[in-house]
Amino acid sequence: MADILNEQQFASDNYSGVCPEAWAAMEAANAGHAPAYGADAWTQRASDAFRELFETDCEVFFAFNGTAANSMALASLCQSYHSVICAESAHVETDECGAPEFFSNGSKLLVAPSADGLLTPDSVRAVAERRSDIHYPKPRAVTITQSTETGRVYSVAQLQVLSEACRSLGLRLHMDGARFANACAALQLSPAELTWKAGIDVLCFGGTKNGMAVGEAILFFERALAEDFDYRCKQAGQLASKMRYLSAPWVGMLENGAWLRNARHANACARRLVDAVADVPGIAAIFPVEANAVFLSAPPDVLDGLRARGWRFYTFIGGGARFMFAWDTAVERVDALARDIRACA
Amino acid sequence: MADILNEQQFASDNYSGVCPEAWAAMEAANAGHAPAYGADAWTQRASDAFRELFETDCEVFFAFNGTAANSMALASLCQSYHSVICAESAHVETDECGAPEFFSNGSKLLVAPSADGLLTPDSVRAVAERRSDIHYPKPRAVTITQSTETGRVYSVAQLQVLSEACRSLGLRLHMDGARFANACAALQLSPAELTWKAGIDVLCFGGTKNGMAVGEAILFFERALAEDFDYRCKQAGQLASKMRYLSAPWVGMLENGAWLRNARHANACARRLVDAVADVPGIAAIFPVEANAVFLSAPPDVLDGLRARGWRFYTFIGGGARFMFAWDTAVERVDALARDIRACA
Amino acid sequence: MADILNEQQFASDNYSGVCPEAWAAMEAANAGHAPAYGADAWTQRASDAFRELFETDCEVFFAFNGTAANSMALASLCQSYHSVICAESAHVETDECGAPEFFSNGSKLLVAPSADGLLTPDSVRAVAERRSDIHYPKPRAVTITQSTETGRVYSVAQLQVLSEACRSLGLRLHMDGARFANACAALQLSPAELTWKAGIDVLCFGGTKNGMAVGEAILFFERALAEDFDYRCKQAGQLASKMRYLSAPWVGMLENGAWLRNARHANACARRLVDAVADVPGIAAIFPVEANAVFLSAPPDVLDGLRARGWRFYTFIGGGARFMFAWDTAVERVDALARDIRACA
Amino acid sequence: MADILNEQQFASDNYSGVCPEAWAAMEAANAGHAPAYGADAWTQRASDAFRELFETDCEVFFAFNGTAANSMALASLCQSYHSVICAESAHVETDECGAPEFFSNGSKLLVAPSADGLLTPDSVRAVAERRSDIHYPKPRAVTITQSTETGRVYSVAQLQVLSEACRSLGLRLHMDGARFANACAALQLSPAELTWKAGIDVLCFGGTKNGMAVGEAILFFERALAEDFDYRCKQAGQLASKMRYLSAPWVGMLENGAWLRNARHANACARRLVDAVADVPGIAAIFPVEANAVFLSAPPDVLDGLRARGWRFYTFIGGGARFMFAWDTAVERVDALARDIRACA
Repeated sequence: MADILNEQQFASDNYSGVCPEAWAAMEAANAGHAPAYGADAWTQRASDAFRELFETDCEVFFAFNGTAANSMALASLCQSYHSVICAESAHVETDECGAPEFFSNGSKLLVAPSADGLLTPDSVRAVAERRSDIHYPKPRAVTITQSTETGRVYSVAQLQVLSEACRSLGLRLHMDGARFANACAALQLSPAELTWKAGIDVLCFGGTKNGMAVGEAILFFERALAEDFDYRCKQAGQLASKMRYLSAPWVGMLENGAWLRNARHANACARRLVDAVADVPGIAAIFPVEANAVFLSAPPDVLDGLRARGWRFYTFIGGGARFMFAWDTAVERVDALARDIRACA
Repeated sequence: MADILNEQQFASDNYSGVCPEAWAAMEAANAGHAPAYGADAWTQRASDAFRELFETDCEVFFAFNGTAANSMALASLCQSYHSVICAESAHVETDECGAPEFFSNGSKLLVAPSADGLLTPDSVRAVAERRSDIHYPKPRAVTITQSTETGRVYSVAQLQVLSEACRSLGLRLHMDGARFANACAALQLSPAELTWKAGIDVLCFGGTKNGMAVGEAILFFERALAEDFDYRCKQAGQLASKMRYLSAPWVGMLENGAWLRNARHANACARRLVDAVADVPGIAAIFPVEANAVFLSAPPDVLDGLRARGWRFYTFIGGGARFMFAWDTAVERVDALARDIRACA
Repeated sequence: MADILNEQQFASDNYSGVCPEAWAAMEAANAGHAPAYGADAWTQRASDAFRELFETDCEVFFAFNGTAANSMALASLCQSYHSVICAESAHVETDECGAPEFFSNGSKLLVAPSADGLLTPDSVRAVAERRSDIHYPKPRAVTITQSTETGRVYSVAQLQVLSEACRSLGLRLHMDGARFANACAALQLSPAELTWKAGIDVLCFGGTKNGMAVGEAILFFERALAEDFDYRCKQAGQLASKMRYLSAPWVGMLENGAWLRNARHANACARRLVDAVADVPGIAAIFPVEANAVFLSAPPDVLDGLRARGWRFYTFIGGGARFMFAWDTAVERVDALARDIRACA
Repeated sequence: MADILNEQQFASDNYSGVCPEAWAAMEAANAGHAPAYGADAWTQRASDAFRELFETDCEVFFAFNGTAANSMALASLCQSYHSVICAESAHVETDECGAPEFFSNGSKLLVAPSADGLLTPDSVRAVAERRSDIHYPKPRAVTITQSTETGRVYSVAQLQVLSEACRSLGLRLHMDGARFANACAALQLSPAELTWKAGIDVLCFGGTKNGMAVGEAILFFERALAEDFDYRCKQAGQLASKMRYLSAPWVGMLENGAWLRNARHANACARRLVDAVADVPGIAAIFPVEANAVFLSAPPDVLDGLRARGWRFYTFIGGGARFMFAWDTAVERVDALARDIRACA
């Protein structure tokens, strides 16, 4: 079965398992009884670890998955008759089955055109100022993905001009950080620099793709925005009774730096692949490779050839073949893939 | 810290940890890569294990917690302008912060008076036939809890007359099985006998209180009711990407009978306590002890005395002191509690 | 057909037609073209008339009916995970088919026991302080009906102690004024005295039962609460395109006092009936008659006799026979009813 | 004031008043008492008039406005995790402030590119078959506008191929008929031919723009789709208590053909304008003029000149200047506008 599993390993980074650090913490948490619903010591410790890592006294909540974390965060910034501006390739628009609209009871997503999934002040402004009548839902928030669905990262400078534009337009700025760790690793910057210091109001920090079994953290840097958010989590089915199993893995990830090591490895694998095929004729990276994703354009017969050799990858995003790398990607498999690309080309 | 944890152990059965069988399966699942969103082998195996255990080809879904599982199941039986009949002590009414109303976008819960949290055909009929005008939300479903919030169990005969009444009234019958295993253990009956054979349409089978870290299963015995339910789970933030960590523990629980052993142990502890204090003056069980809960009436100074000795228990339900027992309850602690009750009385 | 209509006339005050003053204004408004969606002169004039009548610079919105007006007003005071305290006989609880829950996406109504449908500081406090954990939706608003569903009115003193209790509990106070005019007439007090001067935050002023064809007004006395409420109306299907037909009748009602005359007449008819049967053996008023409703307890055969003589009335509210009076109730019919009650008794 | 009003009269057809036939019926209905909530004779008569006009035993409901009528109709065809396909210029997408998403609790609108706002089988199919995974809301309905927001009409042949495509794709077909009468007038076809005979499942027939004060009718040609729709109307704040004022005008409109006369006049005015300026240099119709709208492209200084002469029109739709004509448009004003266009060009 190992071969089959390895063949699958570049389809998505959520095909990966739980990293040893997260597992060990979860195992340590599995001792005796503990108060439910987050009143346990592990949840306190994980929350404090976030506050230390982000160098600020933010409000921290834990949700089961990214769908819910992002949807609840956006709903907390909007009423149902408001709207949220996002890139046309944003996961919340393309792959959440209407979850943001469901959690908010109808807040519309307004799609801004974007290159590489990166929003700019101009693209946001164009959408925000498109209409100002009551027949159109009033924009109240912007959501960006860091790193983006196309493997790009926003620089601090890009974040700052964007957040300034948002502030001037009366818009809150939310960051979908399903792959936030990869952005930190790519830019070699601290979580604080990439979030609240750059004007982010709310971050959903993804644990699942980073090496956990389940769970995302929602960080409100402006505490007032988090008023009664614990009730929202409860009502929306996102309050774990045995919370320690959601929070302890974060302790394992954050306290010893596994979150960053995991992301660095995944990014390095992406870099390794794209470098290895840089000189192969007919093969080209569609987007600059900045995080843990590689999108390759290749002739159809090359892709068919790769599939015939057992490789699995998505082709429905961005127009090419997407290869995703995770904390547990085997370097040998990356090299094997590169060889096969060269052979098929 | 161990002493403190032990002292806490009767406040709720969700203070317990993960049982060895569930843990071992989760550990086994943590090997290599696996397809996301339930397309993995563990999820298939867990689904099949449910179908085998329930002796029927039911539809099986996995959700993160009971709040969501019950709310989504009820929403699938109703439109927003319909209503759901429940006992006044039902968890969905008293302890879910409006989750059923949120997931259904407004389906009202109609509360039926009940003794011990058990609904009867008469109590359901009285509510169902209270009104028939469009100013009142049309009843479409009944939800019962098995075992109940007060530690009672419905017999097969009780379930059958209830489900017949529901059918004749055009109502679907949902079972909140947060402690379904405890009911099976109490009645020494098979899951099939207590569900579809007795007329239950949908069951939410609780894994968390039964010995898992996170996760409930939703079983539709009438498959047509499950149409597009996978989309509902996705939109509502209840589709795990690394699904194997939700499904594998069920394999561990179901394939070797841990689900039933765990419940038997918990029930036995409840029985042990109530028997041990049966002759203590001033102490009485408020409800017959049938599952894993004991509700004791006791003079206030007795309860104060117990608290002073470090015991933790809830008093906001049912008017007395609630003691809950779990798969990992230490018998010695039950005996110690019984001794202290006798000493304080 | 006239006889049949007259026989029906005490079942509800919404069986009445449009009063001449409202009609004349609507007719005057039906001249030529006018900007849509409330940008017309009639809507401005009606809004100003409300501000003059209430002696304050409140925000004024128009909705199609009371279901929507009350539900939107409550939704503006709550998030979905909050709750609203109301009397058990409140229309929003008993006769709106889950509309408050629908518009708010799940805010639960918490029912307070009450005598005559009147809430007291104690009854509100008992519910508000019942729970303070996140498993129970946090109370954020109280709704009262003035006059109540049982024909009672809150005095200024009662309103003041209630609003003080609300303020101390962090609760907003909403008034369902489907029959607000009847309360003003009964108490001979100004709209200002019965609302913002007594601590009411939001009033839904009913136009339909008061003599209009369609339409209610929503008045926010604290303007900040009305932020983006126009968007809420639009999204919820409550923004009339030809708004003048909703607003002009208010001009007709408010500018010449028809709203108060209409209510006085209805109240007087109720008083006339209850006085006329005060000495009839076996007949008694269930509630003090303060506004335009009379609830009579009477032996079943008396009620049957009345029905046999063609009278129509509801018996599902308050345990007796309800007779409602409107702006156009014919005094002769009231007298005829009184005679028939005496004859049947 | 008359001059000003006349100047405004081409901005929208909802600037018009109530036509004499609708007014007379409303006035006739304003006699004596009548049962509430649609149990009156006028509502029965209006419903029957629809069934006669459409030559079929359809289910008929009355709502206050088009926002609600269309949103409720679409919600009845979908669950929250489903989606609705519409043209990018569809009113439900561009001008309803998220109402469809609110009423459905999250059903996403999937926008199909279209020429002139007309959907084709290919455009629908391309969207419907775009995705089939649970991360994307499953399409369940298509909505078309007849006549379209750009003044086009679907022919019977176009409707038939579209409805066949929908059926083969498992999609229901809804028609937003805010200007349905104009389409009937344009095509000289019966309501039946343009709806159920051509495969339409649900029609929202607009009364407001057609000459009424308020109110739209919702017609379900497949009666099973209307199950419990009366409860939906009630909960959503769309059940009028004095229903006769919503239904009687329809009697006035339908029984003597006013609905069609009104539409013919409006269409004729549009035709008159476009014919009158056909030879003016620099002026061109952007879309074929088929119903009651004319979209003209013109140099900016021409539009400025028209505004300076007091004409009012929108320019935010379709890229040109939109002139809308209603049942009460004065022919002399159309001619005056044509002269001014010629003068300014």
